[in-house]
Amino acid sequence: MDAQTTSGAALKIGVAGLGNVGASVVRLLQDNAQMLAARAGRPVVVTAVSARDAARDRGFKRDGITFHADARDLVKDPNVDVVVEVIGGAQGMAWDVVSGALALDKPVVTANKAMLALRGKEVLAALTASKAPLAFEAAVAGGIPAIKTLREGLAANNIRAVYGILNGTCNYIMSEMTETGRAFADVLADAQKLGYAEADPTFDVDGHDASHKLAILAALAFGGVPNVDAIKVSGIRAVSALDIGFARELGYRIRLLGIARKRDSGIEQTVEACLVPMNSPLASVEGPLNAVYVDGDFCGKILLTGAGAGGDATASAVVADIIDFARGHHLPLLGRPVDAGETVAVAPIGKRMGHFYLRLQVIDQPGVIADVSAILRDCAVSLETVLQRGRDPGQEVSVILTLHETEQARVDEAVQKIAALKSVKEAPHLMRIEVLS
Amino acid sequence: MDAQTTSGAALKIGVAGLGNVGASVVRLLQDNAQMLAARAGRPVVVTAVSARDAARDRGFKRDGITFHADARDLVKDPNVDVVVEVIGGAQGMAWDVVSGALALDKPVVTANKAMLALRGKEVLAALTASKAPLAFEAAVAGGIPAIKTLREGLAANNIRAVYGILNGTCNYIMSEMTETGRAFADVLADAQKLGYAEADPTFDVDGHDASHKLAILAALAFGGVPNVDAIKVSGIRAVSALDIGFARELGYRIRLLGIARKRDSGIEQTVEACLVPMNSPLASVEGPLNAVYVDGDFCGKILLTGAGAGGDATASAVVADIIDFARGHHLPLLGRPVDAGETVAVAPIGKRMGHFYLRLQVIDQPGVIADVSAILRDCAVSLETVLQRGRDPGQEVSVILTLHETEQARVDEAVQKIAALKSVKEAPHLMRIEVLS
Repeated sequence: MDAQTTSGAALKIGVAGLGNVGASVVRLLQDNAQMLAARAGRPVVVTAVSARDAARDRGFKRDGITFHADARDLVKDPNVDVVVEVIGGAQGMAWDVVSGALALDKPVVTANKAMLALRGKEVLAALTASKAPLAFEAAVAGGIPAIKTLREGLAANNIRAVYGILNGTCNYIMSEMTETGRAFADVLADAQKLGYAEADPTFDVDGHDASHKLAILAALAFGGVPNVDAIKVSGIRAVSALDIGFARELGYRIRLLGIARKRDSGIEQTVEACLVPMNSPLASVEGPLNAVYVDGDFCGKILLTGAGAGGDATASAVVADIIDFARGHHLPLLGRPVDAGETVAVAPIGKRMGHFYLRLQVIDQPGVIADVSAILRDCAVSLETVLQRGRDPGQEVSVILTLHETEQARVDEAVQKIAALKSVKEAPHLMRIEVLS
Repeated sequence: MDAQTTSGAALKIGVAGLGNVGASVVRLLQDNAQMLAARAGRPVVVTAVSARDAARDRGFKRDGITFHADARDLVKDPNVDVVVEVIGGAQGMAWDVVSGALALDKPVVTANKAMLALRGKEVLAALTASKAPLAFEAAVAGGIPAIKTLREGLAANNIRAVYGILNGTCNYIMSEMTETGRAFADVLADAQKLGYAEADPTFDVDGHDASHKLAILAALAFGGVPNVDAIKVSGIRAVSALDIGFARELGYRIRLLGIARKRDSGIEQTVEACLVPMNSPLASVEGPLNAVYVDGDFCGKILLTGAGAGGDATASAVVADIIDFARGHHLPLLGRPVDAGETVAVAPIGKRMGHFYLRLQVIDQPGVIADVSAILRDCAVSLETVLQRGRDPGQEVSVILTLHETEQARVDEAVQKIAALKSVKEAPHLMRIEVLS
């Protein structure tokens, strides 16, 4: 059965939204048209686009393409078979396009992580009522085929954990701080100039973007509807040049990791800055790259790395979904039938075990380390290393502790008590050491 | 359209061959049966196996499984819908099973790299005559979904190059030599004890295994039927502890790389030991791991890393193919229709540009470097660095040269002339420096 030809009718694509991603999707479908027809088993052509400004040159050929000022009109265009939604945002126009297309039984390809993460139930309900499928490879990790890998490539496995470097902005900032020793705010300002960070960086640097992507990966790996509320989220603002330097000295790099892990009590989900051993595969993911690391019962540990954002890389993912649709390859949204009300148990964060890094800013005077050590002992937390750099009697110095494997709740309790010591001058900075086991 | 249920009829699997991989496939299908039924949309059950020794306990439940002494009987078993061929070898029983199943219009899942690489035309012909498909995720890079990634995940891209660490034995040996400074033969002997290398290591260490896998990846990336003859193959036997040490000193690691690259004149395919920069993603692939690195026009550079061999990892790939079949997801063997006679142009190796590493064993006497330099100058090859470690007048010492970007044919010519110098005592050892650009 290898005689599949390209003689099928053309598949007509409408692209709603002509930002970077939308424009790249149109260019890709035009530039690689001949190869795509062979791979898709039929020609794939862009017949309609929507954008507020129709006049601007976006680097693609406009012949044969209808411009719609309103994306909802593109959805209704009888000359559109598949709707690509690259407008973004969980609400408003993006939702109207996705729900409208499904209501008309038109397949949808979307890059919309926010919609899937925040409105998963509604997307599932709209899909159940529709004859059409929805695909979303582009919603997570840009050009990396992370969704296909979890949903198909590793579908035979019970997944034990998924770790992701899911936000290129944060990874760029962490990498630059490591390389240059510069402060967070400086590097952020540069990242904004280079286009790696938004004017308002909150969504990226506070971990929210990564949490949307993690919620989607966790749903694929462990079942249930994506549930952002189950994730303990923090970002990278609190990571100082001091932390970067000390981590380096101790043989680690700092990365913002999204982690979804199966525990006996349920799924544990976190987005937080972690120390990872310098020789671990996640430490070598530098700059704006993304990575997804999956641990399965039969496949073992699989790492995917690549460009997590950018118009072209994201377009590669969008068009992969289009080819699947052209070939009639559809899957349930989350890889297996999921009821819109399905939830998975959430493992309590306090119970998780881990190694930790703790930075204290203390007054350099006799007895401080003794006080801190006593608190740790009383909380049954065992010290691995203590590092003090510089001596400056009576002044503030950094003391770095690493802690043997222990329960999060105990460490939290100890840190609270340590914070209350008179000689401790700032809120202690606690980070998890993630050894990927 | 998310209401896909698991109410379909069971898909009945026959596993031909019960070595490590076959036994793992059966265990996986039994252990993860419930989850697989949800993902596959129907139950997937093993109904038959074939093995010479039926009695041996292989860690799976035998109830409901028919044992066939002859795999050809398993193929004909009316209680088998899909045939899994994990016997191995391009000829003999494996071929009888694959061709026999296709002749009966039974879908085939195989891990057989040799058959696809060496008999691609015949496999294509058998497929064309059959109503059934064939899938082979397990044939390349074990548990890493490399085939699905190239054939589907990155299907939108014109691929510029594929680089692979495709042989775990070689990578283990290179890693161990780097870590311990020990000689090739020592480390090989250890690898044999640990089960990372076969009693007869030729197929692995001389690059043939990697060449089979590269031929398959190249066909997926660039079209045509897999063509092992188009690959310039060498292995790792010539890599000495000296080379490992000097490479390290220069900031490189040595890896056996399979490379298929698009040039203006055609596709260039090589399997050879190369130097890669220490901070490159391929340098961090350690031990028996495999890696596949794909450079596409829209996705950019995507790296996949994981276990490239072993029963369980390979079973993960086999069962992913079974799930695809259960869902009715079939693709042309090579991702697009390929005629059994289709070939792609082969780029001449002599014309390729590259940076090089050259180790000479010379008599430590005045004028040697001058002679070597003069030959390089006459061949228009430009020196980047010269490194001599130790001084031992009148005795043999190593001289390491690195060469600026230049044409392979010119370097080959220079090396031939250098080899003829009286003061040069061994065949010069030339390796490419692969900067992954």
